[in-house]
Amino acid sequence: MQTTDTTPNTDASRAAARRQQILIAAAQCFRDHGFHAASITKISIAAGMSPGHIYHYFENKEAIIAAIVAQDLESLLTLTAQLRAACNMRAALIERAAEGVADQLDPVSAALKLEIVAEAARNPRVAQIVREADAACRRELAITIRAIRRVAGHEDSPEAIDAMVEVLACLFEGLLLRTIRHPDLDRQRVAKRIQLAINDLIDQPGD
Amino acid sequence: MQTTDTTPNTDASRAAARRQQILIAAAQCFRDHGFHAASITKISIAAGMSPGHIYHYFENKEAIIAAIVAQDLESLLTLTAQLRAACNMRAALIERAAEGVADQLDPVSAALKLEIVAEAARNPRVAQIVREADAACRRELAITIRAIRRVAGHEDSPEAIDAMVEVLACLFEGLLLRTIRHPDLDRQRVAKRIQLAINDLIDQPGD
Repeated sequence: MQTTDTTPNTDASRAAARRQQILIAAAQCFRDHGFHAASITKISIAAGMSPGHIYHYFENKEAIIAAIVAQDLESLLTLTAQLRAACNMRAALIERAAEGVADQLDPVSAALKLEIVAEAARNPRVAQIVREADAACRRELAITIRAIRRVAGHEDSPEAIDAMVEVLACLFEGLLLRTIRHPDLDRQRVAKRIQLAINDLIDQPGD
Repeated sequence: MQTTDTTPNTDASRAAARRQQILIAAAQCFRDHGFHAASITKISIAAGMSPGHIYHYFENKEAIIAAIVAQDLESLLTLTAQLRAACNMRAALIERAAEGVADQLDPVSAALKLEIVAEAARNPRVAQIVREADAACRRELAITIRAIRRVAGHEDSPEAIDAMVEVLACLFEGLLLRTIRHPDLDRQRVAKRIQLAINDLIDQPGD
């Protein structure tokens, strides 16, 4: 925090802090009660703000979901940019996968992600948010996987790359369910096996 | 249906049909409204029965979830028994994986499974149901994977097998999320890539 903040900056950072405070409270309500039962009133109590204040920042619950999903997308975009900047992209992907596994196995964030996708299955507005973010993720992952496969000597069709991206996505997204169904799983051994599976994926034959 | 049914059999098959009718109606309500908002009243309307009738068969919504989860477990146990009876278990696993992928990509049953796991993340009674079924699945899959790995010349620690079972579970359970996030994915190509990934999993080094 700078002491020389001008008023607009202070306002902007205060607004960002308020938004973040709402997102944290909303995430907790979605996890604890489900999207449907997590009313703006409940979220406002959890955030320690008035409902009017919440509406000042977010039009409705879908807009809150959109902001949560945008933050996850941002992390993935940062990760893929870092992977592509690595000297050895393949080694970087496999190394960073261990962190990815640990993140996905966090039961608190897994519960929120599952709730969002379960809601997407019945709420077209949430579905649109989730699908647009997923398309952006897939585009970046496809570029990354294509680059790594090229170094390994493979020239693939876009369809083959897309299917490999789906398998990579399954490995990570499956963990969200595993951590709820089997909370005591051996995190370190699973991470190692996922790393081996990713390594093998890079060497899969083309179409 | 036999025409020589005795009264007890007719009663039993009528009861089984009623139970099934409730499970179908409840599954639809859980998917459409979420577990929390799917009241016994809503389920009774969807099933075309009185709430009292529902309570005659199921004590509460958790008991309905338990019955749905038990049916899924039953299918998995049948599958693993079939795999272990195959001449070539590895080929059978990979062949049957294509069906498994198609099943997991059905958006209607995916929505229900995701809703159940999302509810498990906040409801200890649903968590217990889901975790007990998952433990039974894992036991059978571990026996199957160990048998297949033995034929391939690997003698593994129980911990290594358990971690491989988790990766196998991720591949299939991840598809539940993929079909919601990316409904247009190329089902055939993804099935083929999952089959390749399973084949590679069987050849992973031991611990």
